[in-house]
Amino acid sequence: MTLIEMGKNAKLAAGQLMTASTPLKNSALEAIADALIKNTDIILDANKKDTESAKARGISESMLDRLTLTSTRIASIADATRQVASLPDPVGQVDSTVIRPNGLKISRVRVPLGVIGMIFEARPNVTVDAAVLCLKSGNAVILRGGSEAIHSNIALTEIMQNALEKAGLSRFSVQIISDTSRETAKELMRLNGYIDLLIPRGGAGLIRTVVENATVPVVETGVGNCHVYIDEHAQIDMGVNIIYNAKTSRPSVCNAAETLLVHKNIAEQFLPKAYEKLREKNVEIRGCSETVRILGNVKPATDTDYETEFLDYILAVKVVDSVDEAILHIKKYSSGHSECIVTDSYPTAEHFLSQVDAAAVYLNASTRFTDGGEFGLGAEIGISTQKMHVRGPMGLTALTSIKHIIYGNGQIR
Amino acid sequence: MTLIEMGKNAKLAAGQLMTASTPLKNSALEAIADALIKNTDIILDANKKDTESAKARGISESMLDRLTLTSTRIASIADATRQVASLPDPVGQVDSTVIRPNGLKISRVRVPLGVIGMIFEARPNVTVDAAVLCLKSGNAVILRGGSEAIHSNIALTEIMQNALEKAGLSRFSVQIISDTSRETAKELMRLNGYIDLLIPRGGAGLIRTVVENATVPVVETGVGNCHVYIDEHAQIDMGVNIIYNAKTSRPSVCNAAETLLVHKNIAEQFLPKAYEKLREKNVEIRGCSETVRILGNVKPATDTDYETEFLDYILAVKVVDSVDEAILHIKKYSSGHSECIVTDSYPTAEHFLSQVDAAAVYLNASTRFTDGGEFGLGAEIGISTQKMHVRGPMGLTALTSIKHIIYGNGQIR
Repeated sequence: MTLIEMGKNAKLAAGQLMTASTPLKNSALEAIADALIKNTDIILDANKKDTESAKARGISESMLDRLTLTSTRIASIADATRQVASLPDPVGQVDSTVIRPNGLKISRVRVPLGVIGMIFEARPNVTVDAAVLCLKSGNAVILRGGSEAIHSNIALTEIMQNALEKAGLSRFSVQIISDTSRETAKELMRLNGYIDLLIPRGGAGLIRTVVENATVPVVETGVGNCHVYIDEHAQIDMGVNIIYNAKTSRPSVCNAAETLLVHKNIAEQFLPKAYEKLREKNVEIRGCSETVRILGNVKPATDTDYETEFLDYILAVKVVDSVDEAILHIKKYSSGHSECIVTDSYPTAEHFLSQVDAAAVYLNASTRFTDGGEFGLGAEIGISTQKMHVRGPMGLTALTSIKHIIYGNGQIR
Repeated sequence: MTLIEMGKNAKLAAGQLMTASTPLKNSALEAIADALIKNTDIILDANKKDTESAKARGISESMLDRLTLTSTRIASIADATRQVASLPDPVGQVDSTVIRPNGLKISRVRVPLGVIGMIFEARPNVTVDAAVLCLKSGNAVILRGGSEAIHSNIALTEIMQNALEKAGLSRFSVQIISDTSRETAKELMRLNGYIDLLIPRGGAGLIRTVVENATVPVVETGVGNCHVYIDEHAQIDMGVNIIYNAKTSRPSVCNAAETLLVHKNIAEQFLPKAYEKLREKNVEIRGCSETVRILGNVKPATDTDYETEFLDYILAVKVVDSVDEAILHIKKYSSGHSECIVTDSYPTAEHFLSQVDAAAVYLNASTRFTDGGEFGLGAEIGISTQKMHVRGPMGLTALTSIKHIIYGNGQIR
């Protein structure tokens, strides 16, 4: 099938999904969860093809782990599907209603976006997670996963399509592009008239390619160069716990901290304690000259270190003269994802929270909380680092738009 | 100045505007309004250069009228500026606050987008209108108007810049690109890292160019192929008034109706009455074979007529067998702007309102109400026909984003 044909089919399916009832959509999701469990063997067989060819190409252990499905992992994908079924349906919710002086009643009603395109890398669980969130919010989806997981992705999609059809929805509600060449990805980015929103989910390179090439609307996701600033009025233990958690609880994710900023008046006390804790996980420190002076045997930091999203057990450190120097540093290097200040000073906190512009700005809490589940959205399809449409974790509502419904009794202008 | 330099200056100005107080922004807007009045002669001199060179090139009367400023028009631009000053400031508004089970308090707070790019055509009043809405919502703006109005636009911008500086804001809060070549427009469309949102305002050609070339986030505006459907259960007089108003009250605007759909069971009664009324304004009818049969001497419609946004005293007409045929016709030809049904039947109305997907769907009211002022937004910078970020009239809130502010007391994950 050509991409245009896929687009046409998706549009037809989206037309049906637009007005599908919540119970119908939920029963389709339950049917998908059942089918995933029932077809575990088929999924594992397909996944084996992917992992074996990945091993033959000699990919890293961590990449292989991300690619691998097990019956436990399939069960947890099915569980996540059922959990999305249990979430409130955003479609049809009325955001506001106003009655104008001329008697017109104007309601802002949530409607699906239509057709969502999703370009993502390795992990095959994203295939189901993304499809399920799109379906629940009444959207059709065209998926384009990476070549490494193509057998898994095709198997998962076919299982979902059959379940959808049984539940009474179009099988074209979820489609996957089987040709994983760069050309099809670029074609998807330019499928105007068929794609209402394109979400790239992956590394900085993928996001950049999409932003540069897409002519359809895009939400940028993911890159997180996050900072934790320890103010002179911070509680030292709290600061140590927060940077330790933000750096080491899961270094490979976008809400992990990459740079620690410390006020000069607290640096002598704070840095040795933080360093002692971070060494438990063998975190490599790359510090400014003052950090090196205080800690002794740590690497000096370069400008590149402050720019880098390490996604690893590496932490850039800088001692600053003031909260304003910390804010300036963050303005210069931040990717606008998650930023944190640790302080007990109310005016300093308010100053930082208002001056720092990011999807999430924290006072006295780890940056690791920037997550759809932690924010109470139930699930997320990605974390937006742009300011348009949605900023921060994207839940079901971010997959909807507004329609104005206007009730009159003959008004003319 | 290069566009990159303008972008850097705009970013610095946006940093200041982000936290500018409402009184400061309002006093700057009042200062702009005062300065426009005070410098009326300078503006008229500059405008004369534009209109004279336009006359020399032999542009149409209506284009010339759009380009021409008078002291009355300048006064009304100043009035509009003061009206924006009087609107509520969206910045700092808290959309919602949740307290999570772990005690984290998460607030969604409205913040400015940052730097807005605006590409527009002929009318110089847009220069001030757009700048003022951006300023009120805490954004810096880079304007790129058409070459026809360049002298007026530069004069207006300089007057605004001087007023801003006097009021204590950066003069780079509002900038205009003086080089009106296509290259600078394209450069603006690709000024990633400096432009947070680009709004093209103009004809279909401009919008298409921007969508195809932009790598910065864009909101598409404007194209309106709007339909009025007269159901078999419509009140005939109400239907006549609505189509007459929707077509003729201002045919050149995007919310004017372009196609009339009529249920076959009411067509024999309705069409002659509507035609009689529309002839008062010499509206040209292009009808389907059934319309031609009923009305006699009217032109037959082609497929192209149903696709066309006439923006003129021309109306395509089609008799349909059912509300579903009307819905299908709209699905095929609609630009997703404004669609209307006239009916007294509750189930038919609900069916139409839920099945038709557009920024605004009307029951028993003219499509001409799709407008920021009419919707109660106070003013608008354009009408979005896309589904992302904002749909329909774009008021001040559409020029803002969300920041999550999270208050903790040491939470880690």
